[in-house]
Amino acid sequence: MGLRTLCATALITAVALAPALSAKTIESERAEFKLSTIADDLKNPWGLTFLPDGSMLVTERVGNIRRVSANGEVSEPLSGLPDIVVKGQGGLLDIATDPDYANNGYVYFSYSEPGENDTNSTALARARIDGQTLVDLEVIFSQKPKVKSNAHFGSRIVFKGDGTLFLTLGDRYSRMDDAQTLDNHHGKVIRINTDGSVPADNPFLQTEGALPEIWSYGHRNMQGGTIHPETGEFWSGEHGAQGGDEINIDRAGVNYGWPVITYGENYGGGKIGEGFKKAGMEAPIYYWLPSLATAGLTFYSGDKFPDWQGDLFVASLRAETLSRLDIENGRVLHEERMLSDELGERIRHVTQGPDGYLYLLTDQGDGKIIRLTPSD
Amino acid sequence: MGLRTLCATALITAVALAPALSAKTIESERAEFKLSTIADDLKNPWGLTFLPDGSMLVTERVGNIRRVSANGEVSEPLSGLPDIVVKGQGGLLDIATDPDYANNGYVYFSYSEPGENDTNSTALARARIDGQTLVDLEVIFSQKPKVKSNAHFGSRIVFKGDGTLFLTLGDRYSRMDDAQTLDNHHGKVIRINTDGSVPADNPFLQTEGALPEIWSYGHRNMQGGTIHPETGEFWSGEHGAQGGDEINIDRAGVNYGWPVITYGENYGGGKIGEGFKKAGMEAPIYYWLPSLATAGLTFYSGDKFPDWQGDLFVASLRAETLSRLDIENGRVLHEERMLSDELGERIRHVTQGPDGYLYLLTDQGDGKIIRLTPSD
Repeated sequence: MGLRTLCATALITAVALAPALSAKTIESERAEFKLSTIADDLKNPWGLTFLPDGSMLVTERVGNIRRVSANGEVSEPLSGLPDIVVKGQGGLLDIATDPDYANNGYVYFSYSEPGENDTNSTALARARIDGQTLVDLEVIFSQKPKVKSNAHFGSRIVFKGDGTLFLTLGDRYSRMDDAQTLDNHHGKVIRINTDGSVPADNPFLQTEGALPEIWSYGHRNMQGGTIHPETGEFWSGEHGAQGGDEINIDRAGVNYGWPVITYGENYGGGKIGEGFKKAGMEAPIYYWLPSLATAGLTFYSGDKFPDWQGDLFVASLRAETLSRLDIENGRVLHEERMLSDELGERIRHVTQGPDGYLYLLTDQGDGKIIRLTPSD
Repeated sequence: MGLRTLCATALITAVALAPALSAKTIESERAEFKLSTIADDLKNPWGLTFLPDGSMLVTERVGNIRRVSANGEVSEPLSGLPDIVVKGQGGLLDIATDPDYANNGYVYFSYSEPGENDTNSTALARARIDGQTLVDLEVIFSQKPKVKSNAHFGSRIVFKGDGTLFLTLGDRYSRMDDAQTLDNHHGKVIRINTDGSVPADNPFLQTEGALPEIWSYGHRNMQGGTIHPETGEFWSGEHGAQGGDEINIDRAGVNYGWPVITYGENYGGGKIGEGFKKAGMEAPIYYWLPSLATAGLTFYSGDKFPDWQGDLFVASLRAETLSRLDIENGRVLHEERMLSDELGERIRHVTQGPDGYLYLLTDQGDGKIIRLTPSD
């Protein structure tokens, strides 16, 4: 479609090249690495995706999509976005490139979509890029119902690899009990085809009253999702209550228990739900107590850090750390926490670039894109 | 056999009632509890077992077995023990009561057994108790070969529940490569009948040159073992190299990799073996980096701490901590570390009493038996 060439030449309006972080080598359990700031002065960057020409698209929660060249030139915001509610935890959230981008040119982004009477919910749109503008915009999913809430929007967009995608959603905070019923999209993972239609093998198509997009339920606020590079399973991260951050392997039709079972408690204290276990509800495969406030996550499968292959990296906000979970056979064998000393910033997301490096987004008014590279 | 009555009246020679620890309530993630010192002034206590009358037998590494009444009266050492090598990590180690003690009166203990020319190895004996004396002593297993080494003796005695028992062993430090071959007992778990004979379904009976007692291999220095209360699986703890402490589910015939694969490195630095994974070798289900120096462990299955049921407790020496591992479906979901502040002593062992309380042994010249009880 020729879009890549067009974008690479037309989109980049240099703002400033970001200063490098200290070249200090960081020693970790399995790798020595350095941090480089690829771009900075981004307003609460939330999602990051890569285009075939080596450039990136980054979202700012305030409602901007910017293109960043491989060497860090940051464009002006693209135009052509839909209306976005920017308040509380809401705004422009994740962004993802179609696996078949080279042929169809689609990018997908999730955001807080306004409704009537000050309501909102998370929505998912796709569009193509023409120069500085989004074109062919389609809203392919809107979370139902819309409610008055500033919190728990999710969300991550993850391609399953079969022409469908997952979108992780939140319980909207004020509606946490909705996570247990199937007549709404609160506290759910949904699975749709990339055009927004419903796959014929979704788990609740035969369940009366259930919304057909639902893949799994009983979730709180899911800001992380990734596909296991070997098993193809969908692994999700859930930002829990105090002490309830979770990693789950998200399977079709399964109830993950929120808010009936949880390892968390209300902030400031106070029990939630019925305990830790209940028949018909799935325990997580790992949880944090105290909470880190987990956000984005990714499996590492690149060649730049051989001893990180197969490990799950989890970004966290409050703990300002990057957790490396050593995974074997669906078990977490060990956790290493990195960067809280060396970086000391809230980390919204971690993802792997096509170059095999890890990339972080720091959650600040002057947020950064940071690349991890081996020190030697 | 009337032994219990005899023991209860004859064995107790009061030394001193131990002072109580501070009655301070310790708040942990799932329980509030207090520590009580049941007995103190024990010389590096290593193993602890309970008799039907509520009293305990405790080993001191220097070669003593003492009886401790439920209210903390400590007897003089029993007589009638075999020769024991007390040096380095060697001495009198674990002790266990026969599941059918009420009928047969047997207790089992492991220890460092002397050989010719200053050699030694771990051995397992059983005996009955008559007053202050061990009688009917039989050495039912001797680790082969005996070598000159002061280290890595293991060992824990764990009844499988089918008339057999496991004994966990060490690689004797200087002979770590032996852990990979089946012609010796170094770095092995062995399984025998309680009379020392070999069970007919042990995994290597048909393997030429293999010692018939071997259950699993590729271990380093195993100071912990316990049966999962629901699955009946044998879970073991391995005191690894720097960074290599492991929890394994020990299955018949499986190779756990030491020293070919390990998460540890030599103390002071330096790689061991070939890495973390290899075909035909089993990864642990959990490991510690840095090492805690893990020792005894037990699943909690009592009624005194309902929110600890199913959790695996692991004692550690260097880290002076009691780890609580939250286990579901064979996975460690979460680790809580307790007592390093409140106790601050090396912990050799943790086990559950028939009263449903947890008991600890602290590893010092003035070592203690400590009981954990709910605070309310």
